[in-house]
Amino acid sequence: MDGTLDASTATRRITAQDLKDFTATVLRCVGLSAADANVTAEVLVAADMRGVSSHGVARLDYYVAMIEAGMIDPRGCPVVVRESATTAVVDARNGLGQPTGVYAMTMALRKAALHDVGMVTVRHSNHYGIAGYYAMMARERDMIGLSLTNTHPCVAPTGGRAPAIGTNPIAIAVPVSEPLEFVLDMATSVVPRGRLEVAARREERLPAGWAIDRRGAATTDADEALAGALLPLGGAALTSGYKGYGLAVAIEMLSAVLPGSLYGPLVAPMWDTAAPSDLGHFFMAVNVAAFDDPQAFKERARDLLRRLKDAPRADGVTEILVAGEKERAAQERAHHDGVPLNSKVLRTLTAMASRYGVDSRGLDT
Amino acid sequence: MDGTLDASTATRRITAQDLKDFTATVLRCVGLSAADANVTAEVLVAADMRGVSSHGVARLDYYVAMIEAGMIDPRGCPVVVRESATTAVVDARNGLGQPTGVYAMTMALRKAALHDVGMVTVRHSNHYGIAGYYAMMARERDMIGLSLTNTHPCVAPTGGRAPAIGTNPIAIAVPVSEPLEFVLDMATSVVPRGRLEVAARREERLPAGWAIDRRGAATTDADEALAGALLPLGGAALTSGYKGYGLAVAIEMLSAVLPGSLYGPLVAPMWDTAAPSDLGHFFMAVNVAAFDDPQAFKERARDLLRRLKDAPRADGVTEILVAGEKERAAQERAHHDGVPLNSKVLRTLTAMASRYGVDSRGLDT
Repeated sequence: MDGTLDASTATRRITAQDLKDFTATVLRCVGLSAADANVTAEVLVAADMRGVSSHGVARLDYYVAMIEAGMIDPRGCPVVVRESATTAVVDARNGLGQPTGVYAMTMALRKAALHDVGMVTVRHSNHYGIAGYYAMMARERDMIGLSLTNTHPCVAPTGGRAPAIGTNPIAIAVPVSEPLEFVLDMATSVVPRGRLEVAARREERLPAGWAIDRRGAATTDADEALAGALLPLGGAALTSGYKGYGLAVAIEMLSAVLPGSLYGPLVAPMWDTAAPSDLGHFFMAVNVAAFDDPQAFKERARDLLRRLKDAPRADGVTEILVAGEKERAAQERAHHDGVPLNSKVLRTLTAMASRYGVDSRGLDT
Repeated sequence: MDGTLDASTATRRITAQDLKDFTATVLRCVGLSAADANVTAEVLVAADMRGVSSHGVARLDYYVAMIEAGMIDPRGCPVVVRESATTAVVDARNGLGQPTGVYAMTMALRKAALHDVGMVTVRHSNHYGIAGYYAMMARERDMIGLSLTNTHPCVAPTGGRAPAIGTNPIAIAVPVSEPLEFVLDMATSVVPRGRLEVAARREERLPAGWAIDRRGAATTDADEALAGALLPLGGAALTSGYKGYGLAVAIEMLSAVLPGSLYGPLVAPMWDTAAPSDLGHFFMAVNVAAFDDPQAFKERARDLLRRLKDAPRADGVTEILVAGEKERAAQERAHHDGVPLNSKVLRTLTAMASRYGVDSRGLDT
């Protein structure tokens, strides 16, 4: 839901396969193994397909820059440092978050297949893209998937005036009978930081309740907000912003404090090149069959979503949506018509192509 | 954090033991076993001690009325209907939510002690008081506790105009080294419905972003809001209310759809006496020792909280709080000075006392 680089400026649609191939090729050029490059490209392009372009190939330049600065190890491979039948702690050894995320979620799924619940934490990792990707891996096995991560600090605690905690997303995917799905994938801040940047670029005012300035006062000025901090979900204290703040801290506890990664204000800003990010993740898989016949569960889940969609609508509203519905529609369109990329991202990709001597003809289709 | 019946009108402090004894006696009068009456009294008084008076003995009249109407079975005893090493489904058989909640969370803790994770869902239950009570049961075993429940519908989905989903709370308690604690216990609506009632009674305007009227338009009129619906955490769509709505649905999936209870708009209003509520709960315990030395974890958790408390404060803010801190201070004061009860609740309790011929002298101290 946090697509930032708005689709309205999209200029071209690329086939998913071409975009994956290009992305994987660039990642191999900066040192990733073919397998890790493919997994990372898959996760990034999945974000673009679902309309979450802020977490798609637009981030490729970040990963490349961090690898070139020696801040991310392109050959960092996850190792299990602690394990029980139902749990594990994985050390990402400063590799990209995506291959480790897929590795750790796969472990959680395997454990859940044997013991109904699997829970895997990850330390010494990096930005892992969309949290929802890993949660969604559970659905084809009729499992419920949960994916949490801490992030670079962007959000002020309630009563604070500077970033001290991440936008810490929570993603949960539930198996649902067709044609509906339920994939909640949300930052615990009101909006992602990218929204402030977009508003600043366009010289637009922010809606009230998104951000504070450097003194901690509410602001609708995007530049002042960028110098201040995002508010947690709920906004100011009067509208219960302390709940979003509390959720962010709970996610920090599970994804970073539990595995032993850096946490809260100890995490450096996103583009900092003084030391690796050392982020943490938390993955859980729950086997629906332990609780009920999966088919019966999935039909009840669809019935709940259907009833919410059929609920009385506010004046002027044409449709009530459920979490993941908009993203699924985007994904289906991208499947048929190609993945939308805006001109700015395309220029960045083309520049990377010429820098690494990569064939970028796929981007021209 | 959702204490509604504000402490400002508190007129008297009662010792916790006197209040528990009185509450348990009334519950025995309406048919509960001594054991179930004691557990229920314990959970209710714990809410009052923590300053969450909306979920404390103020609710006793609700439970009593529902039992007398035949909507709650005072002798309903939980039975396990499905079980694996790490999971269970419990049928509350329409008993009170509190004894079943303690039973199910105890099961989750036992499973986590053996297998590192325990997950227990409950069906055919009733309102279980504060979600945080069950989550907090995990801390003394150095476990992380999670407690979720669906509730009677009060909240409109984003784009809706009528209640279709509950205030579905999430509670998570994390073991932390003294003197700090972390207990997040929050409804996924902006505020609890009781806040609208208080404002209506006082003829006060609501803050923007709390509620909508019966046409689905934003309102600050408390009476119009009571005829309309609460907004999910985040408020309107522009401030990401769809995130709070998504969280509420995720909780409905885990706590009601998974065990096979009623869900969403199928749940009747709270005071409805046409049929039992048939609510569901979800409990999870996670053994910290599976991931790290618990002492090391608890110290890191305290360090995170300390750093958040020490973060730069907004102008005019004297202290940054962490989840559960205010409630713990209230609990410590209640322990020393007694539990605060406002005059309205006291009158209700005294009326119940005379009705059942229960000695209410403890309430007069």
